[in-house]
Amino acid sequence: MTIPLHADDFIVPGFRVATGYCGLRSEARPDLLLVAMDAPCRVAGLFTRNQVVAAPVTLCRERLGLGAARALLVNAGNANACTGIQGMADAKQLTQAVAQLLNVADEQVFPSSTGVIGVPLAVAKPLAALPSLLQNLQAGGWERAARAIMTTDTTIKVERLTIDIDGVPVRLVGIAKGSGMIHPNMATMLAYLFTDATIDAPVLQQLLQQAVDQSFHCISVDGDTSTNDTVMAFASAQAPHPAIVTTAAPQAHLLQQTMVEICQRLAQSIVRDGEGATKFITITVSGADSRQEARQIALSVARSALVKTAFFGQDANWGRIVAAVGYAGVAFDANQLDIDLGHVRIVEKGGRARDYDDRDGSNVMMQHDIPIHIHLHQGQESCTVWSCDFSYDYVRINADYRT
Amino acid sequence: MTIPLHADDFIVPGFRVATGYCGLRSEARPDLLLVAMDAPCRVAGLFTRNQVVAAPVTLCRERLGLGAARALLVNAGNANACTGIQGMADAKQLTQAVAQLLNVADEQVFPSSTGVIGVPLAVAKPLAALPSLLQNLQAGGWERAARAIMTTDTTIKVERLTIDIDGVPVRLVGIAKGSGMIHPNMATMLAYLFTDATIDAPVLQQLLQQAVDQSFHCISVDGDTSTNDTVMAFASAQAPHPAIVTTAAPQAHLLQQTMVEICQRLAQSIVRDGEGATKFITITVSGADSRQEARQIALSVARSALVKTAFFGQDANWGRIVAAVGYAGVAFDANQLDIDLGHVRIVEKGGRARDYDDRDGSNVMMQHDIPIHIHLHQGQESCTVWSCDFSYDYVRINADYRT
Repeated sequence: MTIPLHADDFIVPGFRVATGYCGLRSEARPDLLLVAMDAPCRVAGLFTRNQVVAAPVTLCRERLGLGAARALLVNAGNANACTGIQGMADAKQLTQAVAQLLNVADEQVFPSSTGVIGVPLAVAKPLAALPSLLQNLQAGGWERAARAIMTTDTTIKVERLTIDIDGVPVRLVGIAKGSGMIHPNMATMLAYLFTDATIDAPVLQQLLQQAVDQSFHCISVDGDTSTNDTVMAFASAQAPHPAIVTTAAPQAHLLQQTMVEICQRLAQSIVRDGEGATKFITITVSGADSRQEARQIALSVARSALVKTAFFGQDANWGRIVAAVGYAGVAFDANQLDIDLGHVRIVEKGGRARDYDDRDGSNVMMQHDIPIHIHLHQGQESCTVWSCDFSYDYVRINADYRT
Repeated sequence: MTIPLHADDFIVPGFRVATGYCGLRSEARPDLLLVAMDAPCRVAGLFTRNQVVAAPVTLCRERLGLGAARALLVNAGNANACTGIQGMADAKQLTQAVAQLLNVADEQVFPSSTGVIGVPLAVAKPLAALPSLLQNLQAGGWERAARAIMTTDTTIKVERLTIDIDGVPVRLVGIAKGSGMIHPNMATMLAYLFTDATIDAPVLQQLLQQAVDQSFHCISVDGDTSTNDTVMAFASAQAPHPAIVTTAAPQAHLLQQTMVEICQRLAQSIVRDGEGATKFITITVSGADSRQEARQIALSVARSALVKTAFFGQDANWGRIVAAVGYAGVAFDANQLDIDLGHVRIVEKGGRARDYDDRDGSNVMMQHDIPIHIHLHQGQESCTVWSCDFSYDYVRINADYRT
């Protein structure tokens, strides 16, 4: 099976897509996405761990337990977070209107919002736009879908793959948006997977958890975790392969690999499009006692403002990397620490590598994509994290975002 | 007793000061500080919790246990961190040379270094400068002392107070340097207190710990903790009051209040002089279940890149503050959360305050000094933390630091 060149032509049976502009954004570009499902879909989701949670996230969490989805409605331009009782009423009113138009139950409609926090949602605007959205529903359209949920993103994030399960082609498409407040636990990040796989909801939830753990939980743009983070997966069961009812099945394993692949590509796209980013940094920590400790160290480096500004300055200031490894809160023997910048060993046994020449380090720093490998030599576990630099543009974008 | 207007004229009996230039900096400005002590002083110290520790920090830690100090030698321009066995040999050689010139034991000389990490210390340069330093030793000179230890600091940090203990005047002076890698656990921060108080070393250590807990552990410039952080206190016992032998003594309490005051002023000076800082932000979290949880939330806000850039942009984007409170890792009821920006209530019960007008928030944001008060309404504990904004200049300074 070949994958169409244009993501808008990639059809996942069971899903129809419409986008539109309702005026929640100040610019006249799409700010609404509706994905309607022909029949009840299995649904899985992971949400922000922030103590402050946007109304739509609360609704999604509640509705996840009921196990069936018929629609996803996403708006950009307003996060509907810190909007109190009215915010919850607005989110409910919106999903109720979708439910009535589609003739499904309220609880089968999943809402998401992204944009400014703390400003009441002008709910009349999306309400007025819903009827025309419904008329525009069509198969495919994933690029438009990805474009409608963008905020400060400069590129659309869409990935799709087709796999073969027991001789049956199964499609997966994923869309996502970044690009500020990006740190594990998903930040102001929205991502949605759609597949026609036939799979039980609890299995889908476990596969999604594992895919997120290896992708969206391994990226950091600015260390901020938002109130609206959402990753959801919808499965329409339109592909006529035997149902996947356990994670132990080889079919589950194949599907999981595919979900990991799509989620990693989306997560990396988010980092590449990080606000003001000029560098894409891949940080691998190996030789740790646990994957969790490896990730903690990698994220400490990923988050360091001094490391990020050094990368922006193309300065192989490895001392800042060593310092960030050291303050991650993980115990290790500093005299065993080795660090490679690309193929250049810069730190050896905790100090400057004997044969290290600053020019070699500088050459690596001139690249756009920069790998760092941190060897702890303590245990057998490792983790890879993706990050970007801190530039003048990061400051400009975030100092000016609302004004 | 009056305090002289110029810190250079403030004399603490038992201490003499000399500064000089030895060529460790590229610019021709002082990069060496020697404080010689007429007789063995009680000494206390707190050091970085980074796993990667500079050679001079390791030496100080070892020598602290021996209980007596005769000299402090600080160099700027090179951190002597990640410099391996040679770095330790260099630090030892330097303190040995000081010890020989002063005719004291090696272990009574305490070294500190600040500057670039990972570059071998050109030890011949300070060694050659030591004899002339010794000839220049004089009482007072604390401004020059503070100037000699600066790195990217733009202002000197020196504070002094005189108190009365049992009718005897007791002097305290403190010097410090920032101004990057500033986060609790002391970052690339050096601070030294000198007093003529008569006090046992274990009591001095406890007072210093408490003072640091309320000052240097409550500031954040960029979230980075360095390999060289050092706070030390030296007491010459030249003031003829009865010795302070327990923290329970009222005299200990008075001395501690004074140490807190000096350390808070120094810590705030460091934040005010944070790299590229245009705002001074005081973050108070109250109504927490513990001081530790209050601090954790305050530091989460202090560290948020999105909050810091919003302050630089003078944008009352309180949603980012709420988000940073929420991801601090402390459980609380978001529906109880109130936040004041200056005297303006911006968040009420987790949402936008009813009477909040954006213009009022903007007026506060135009100030240079901005207080934020976060009310959790969970318990009785509170903590105050000082921070600054993230500006273009922060990026410029740190992208260009070595180049």
